[in-house]
Amino acid sequence: MLGRLNHVAIAVPDLAAATAIYRDTLGAAVSQPQALPEHGVTVVFVELPNAKVELLEPLGEASPIAAFLEKSPSGGIHHICYEVNDILAARDRLKAAGARVVGDGEPKIGAHGKPVLFLHPKDFAGTLVELEQV
Amino acid sequence: MLGRLNHVAIAVPDLAAATAIYRDTLGAAVSQPQALPEHGVTVVFVELPNAKVELLEPLGEASPIAAFLEKSPSGGIHHICYEVNDILAARDRLKAAGARVVGDGEPKIGAHGKPVLFLHPKDFAGTLVELEQV
Repeated sequence: MLGRLNHVAIAVPDLAAATAIYRDTLGAAVSQPQALPEHGVTVVFVELPNAKVELLEPLGEASPIAAFLEKSPSGGIHHICYEVNDILAARDRLKAAGARVVGDGEPKIGAHGKPVLFLHPKDFAGTLVELEQV
Repeated sequence: MLGRLNHVAIAVPDLAAATAIYRDTLGAAVSQPQALPEHGVTVVFVELPNAKVELLEPLGEASPIAAFLEKSPSGGIHHICYEVNDILAARDRLKAAGARVVGDGEPKIGAHGKPVLFLHPKDFAGTLVELEQV
């Protein structure tokens, strides 16, 4: 069921500083920052040859990464995103296995314009997992 | 300088349980567990089409992931590994930029039999970064 590793998302308190680390210190190709108010983040994409790293900074009042940064003020890896071909089939398989999907279980349109679901860290080795249909 | 995303390492308290999640619940291809006493971990490789996820369980008295699991008993993403072509050149560039390398700054032979270095989370957006020469 599981396809490619699509991206690793790193929550950061200072997007400009984190972007400079990846662009200047590590020598990676980075995008311009993109504000995604409907997702409560501003994102910079770090383009690696086989996957992306996404640097996320909170945007707005109720950012979904605000609580994470309160606990880890220096930042840290927030979630990992895997690709699936059929997100509804994936959801049904996971629920049948007793795993929890975050929210109401209905896929939302994610930051790449594709249907996504988040899986509960308690059922996935302590890791917040995003599934994206590709 | 930065090449492919080689792997994401997830520290877990129960390797058999985490392996079952990835193999049975998520439907991924997983390796047999491999004890790496010189690295203080037992590892299961989750083989995705473009990258690996490594599930790490502490092994022995002084496992490098023991402190992490004390803070996060359910597990969590421990580090992210990027590939570089020349690890000594990478180290020198990072040190010149003022970034800290963990330990004495000399590459060690990592779990894949290749030279690796770990970079200090405080200088890399709160994230423990491994560089592996490929």
